[in-house]
Amino acid sequence: MSATYPVSERNRVRRLHERGCHDHEAVHAILDAAMLCHIAYVIDGQPYCTPTAFWREGEHLYWHGSSASRMLRAQGPGLPVCLTVTHLDGLVLARSAFNHSVNYRSAMCFGTARFIDDLEEKVRALDAMIDRFYPGRNVTLRPTTAQELKATAVVGMTIEQASAKVRAKGVADDEEDLGLPIYAACFPVTQVIGPAEPCPHMPAEVSYPPGLAGYTPDRRLDELMTETSQMSYPKADD
Amino acid sequence: MSATYPVSERNRVRRLHERGCHDHEAVHAILDAAMLCHIAYVIDGQPYCTPTAFWREGEHLYWHGSSASRMLRAQGPGLPVCLTVTHLDGLVLARSAFNHSVNYRSAMCFGTARFIDDLEEKVRALDAMIDRFYPGRNVTLRPTTAQELKATAVVGMTIEQASAKVRAKGVADDEEDLGLPIYAACFPVTQVIGPAEPCPHMPAEVSYPPGLAGYTPDRRLDELMTETSQMSYPKADD
Repeated sequence: MSATYPVSERNRVRRLHERGCHDHEAVHAILDAAMLCHIAYVIDGQPYCTPTAFWREGEHLYWHGSSASRMLRAQGPGLPVCLTVTHLDGLVLARSAFNHSVNYRSAMCFGTARFIDDLEEKVRALDAMIDRFYPGRNVTLRPTTAQELKATAVVGMTIEQASAKVRAKGVADDEEDLGLPIYAACFPVTQVIGPAEPCPHMPAEVSYPPGLAGYTPDRRLDELMTETSQMSYPKADD
Repeated sequence: MSATYPVSERNRVRRLHERGCHDHEAVHAILDAAMLCHIAYVIDGQPYCTPTAFWREGEHLYWHGSSASRMLRAQGPGLPVCLTVTHLDGLVLARSAFNHSVNYRSAMCFGTARFIDDLEEKVRALDAMIDRFYPGRNVTLRPTTAQELKATAVVGMTIEQASAKVRAKGVADDEEDLGLPIYAACFPVTQVIGPAEPCPHMPAEVSYPPGLAGYTPDRRLDELMTETSQMSYPKADD
């Protein structure tokens, strides 16, 4: 496996190319730090942009939903898609409007969506999804029924091409603007989880699962997602 | 102006329709709580999903970037786009895999992108963008040069159709699963800003601008964006 994705007009980073790359490792890191992505796809010439949970296994990305979902029914037979993940990391207030910016990490992945039709593979993928986000959780759950499985569609794609873009620095003003009496600063932005809100109907003897040890108040979601991904797929990038 | 967007197959909320609506107010609230969106568009049959900052004025949405941007050059002459905003509000861990979910607010807007070609309108839009995010900031900045203006493209669209989807509740398990000895809980998710990191080159006499009074450590970004939007467009939804 090469360390970079093949580059064509489709995924070449054109603007601000110092921020972009096509490395597997950089793309994977951005994907694995997220639970949600946005997927672009086309039905009858009309583009749609739909948010959904997704997960990565090597070069394969998966997402799921209702078997009756218009998105999944359109994608499943083999639709070209673009799956994008974005982390907003900061607001950059410069001395000119032009140099205002944001810090971010973004990955854009191109591929062809396909239903996971094989029942065994579908069950495996759905089990893996639960454990990818919540390590060790799947075996603790009430088993999925045949009806639930039928009501759920799983779609996957192989990453054919991809790009990553990152801005991770401070205010970048023009040299001659630095002395101006204008406030300039960065405000970091993070996505964090709050304290667990246990379901009130839970029997008293149920204790907090060890697999959720990383789910601590104020934990950064991107760090948590990266950690749980590595627990699920420790050798995926070896 | 009617209080809801016209509904067709394109924006009808099909799945879990109890979560969806087509009200202007619901769509606007989700948009105004965000700085970033993802935009789906099509070039030569290939869908792309690109994250970008955007802002709303009434039924008009704007975004901007380099005049050389492939996205903007493709969109500007009049490309159909789908602009989507998603806020992740919580993780929902149920007693069955099937009932796992996330709390979220999402808005999907359909329209046709057009360059803002008129120079006066372009300047006004870019000035408005700065103030929409950072109230009162634009007049304090080093003025934009003719070259910077030329290097910047602004694209806008009118919202032709839209939908909003929201999940905002706790664990929703099947009644018969409630007594099972399985941990079930919600973890709230928020996006927050951190303390300002002032640019080290700033002259000592520069003080913190009153327009950034809302930019306080641990402030929720969605609340801050909503607040600054209302300061910029106080009558937009009257």
